[in-house]
Amino acid sequence: MTKKHFLGIDIGGTSVKIAIVKSDLEILSQTSLPTNIKEEPRKVLKDILKAAAGLEGYDKVKSIGLGIPGDVDSKNGILRRAYNLPKWKNIFVRNILHKYSKKKVCIDNDANAASLGAFWLDTGGKANNLVCITLGTGIGGGIILNKKIYRGSSSSAGEIGHMTITYDRNVCNCENIGCVEAYIGAKNLTAYSVNYIKKHKSPIIMKFIDNDFSKLTIEILYKSALRKDKTALELWQYAGEILGVLLSNIVNFINPDTIVLCGGVSRAEKFILPLAKKEMKMRAFKTPARICNVICSKWSNKLGVVGAAMLAEQ
Amino acid sequence: MTKKHFLGIDIGGTSVKIAIVKSDLEILSQTSLPTNIKEEPRKVLKDILKAAAGLEGYDKVKSIGLGIPGDVDSKNGILRRAYNLPKWKNIFVRNILHKYSKKKVCIDNDANAASLGAFWLDTGGKANNLVCITLGTGIGGGIILNKKIYRGSSSSAGEIGHMTITYDRNVCNCENIGCVEAYIGAKNLTAYSVNYIKKHKSPIIMKFIDNDFSKLTIEILYKSALRKDKTALELWQYAGEILGVLLSNIVNFINPDTIVLCGGVSRAEKFILPLAKKEMKMRAFKTPARICNVICSKWSNKLGVVGAAMLAEQ
Repeated sequence: MTKKHFLGIDIGGTSVKIAIVKSDLEILSQTSLPTNIKEEPRKVLKDILKAAAGLEGYDKVKSIGLGIPGDVDSKNGILRRAYNLPKWKNIFVRNILHKYSKKKVCIDNDANAASLGAFWLDTGGKANNLVCITLGTGIGGGIILNKKIYRGSSSSAGEIGHMTITYDRNVCNCENIGCVEAYIGAKNLTAYSVNYIKKHKSPIIMKFIDNDFSKLTIEILYKSALRKDKTALELWQYAGEILGVLLSNIVNFINPDTIVLCGGVSRAEKFILPLAKKEMKMRAFKTPARICNVICSKWSNKLGVVGAAMLAEQ
Repeated sequence: MTKKHFLGIDIGGTSVKIAIVKSDLEILSQTSLPTNIKEEPRKVLKDILKAAAGLEGYDKVKSIGLGIPGDVDSKNGILRRAYNLPKWKNIFVRNILHKYSKKKVCIDNDANAASLGAFWLDTGGKANNLVCITLGTGIGGGIILNKKIYRGSSSSAGEIGHMTITYDRNVCNCENIGCVEAYIGAKNLTAYSVNYIKKHKSPIIMKFIDNDFSKLTIEILYKSALRKDKTALELWQYAGEILGVLLSNIVNFINPDTIVLCGGVSRAEKFILPLAKKEMKMRAFKTPARICNVICSKWSNKLGVVGAAMLAEQ
């Protein structure tokens, strides 16, 4: 029997996505499990394989790929540390999965898996040099160079959210000063917006949040902008410009042909993308800015699991 | 006869360095020509080859490499535009050199050639991922990934000096705002220093420049710091911190194992390097900062020509 499918596993803070992906990148079958933080990693991995074995097409699975938010030594298949799973420290994930599945296994961090997902789903494998930016609570990144994941010298490449854009202002969660995440990470953008709304007023937003600023979310800023709320539009302009600074730094430095945005903040594509591109073109060198295609992923929800599935095929 | 040497050509704004480099990277013989800005490029290239043919060891030259400050399409061997040579536009440099020498030829921009020089001379070819930063009037950069020059999608990669470190202050020569070059490019650092010295006084510097601020140079700031001049030391602290911001951006983004600094400003290694490293370690993620070796090149004067010589051997 020809083995021609790929098993993708995307471990997140709240759930584990598991999918059998066909070679045309379509998901043949899928399931998910709640992420059990307290369970031993070995047991969690066995449970994942058990769930996968019940999926249609598992008998044709050729290789397994796993993505997880953390510090991953991809070369040796070791998870050094996971950001939301305190029990996952120095776990030989590849060996464990191989032992119980007898299949080829590759693991990587979630941003790298997502970048591979974007490479296949958003560019059909056509990009040569691609950067995938995850715009969520934090800002992460994965880098594809010459059609392969670039991991750097200690598997630490792609910490795009922690590039400095103002060296003397805005302390970031990472303790550095002036990181781009300190501006437009969802959490920080929301905090900035609260202050901005207090100063500039917005009946529409106030109604959405029921006059309770703790209810403010990126989604509400998006919905308010859709209703042409001036304050919300101004906030997206601010976010777009800051994102454009980040894009120009990426473009000037590594000159990619494609930048793919994904994650919560990128859902406001309509408002943030044109402004970010404009700012990027103003700031970056002309040729690399012109040849760089900046898009929001059309497949945000499955980038991680499809990218993971393709890891072992690199 | 075994062909085992390499011809390196380093075209600069004022002179052209030409060297026969042995496979152990020693320069066997060398010469230089003044850069004739008004001459036709084809004639200049023929003159260079003529000068090279007179050098000891030319008969054993296997390949030719040429580095030039400009926009170079390395893949097709075309110089699109040179920054200081208005006549050099869309010149098929590789074809011309090949026609008259019958040897394998490779051309690239000067920063890429320098990064290859740093890779060989400063790391003995041991680095895997290296960034070379040229700290001169402007700030440029070359990138080596997986032991090969990384050029990006339009041969524009490495414009490190134009990465934004404060998005809303300091207009740069490139018209962008807040580029690192707008702070510590030699020209801008000198201008900043003039204002700083006016405010903070320095009898030592004033004596060096004969009370004439137009005479202030990076060299004088360096010499004054060697004499423990407080103002000069403060200026190097400033430059070191800004350089550290740039280093942290590079480290967080592409996680190199080596960063090599070269060019005029890097001669003040004693003052700028420890501060830059300290700032980098404070700002960047711990693992990539720890594994990244930041050094000043010991071979600044010949990085360009030796790197050029090695281009065709990539």
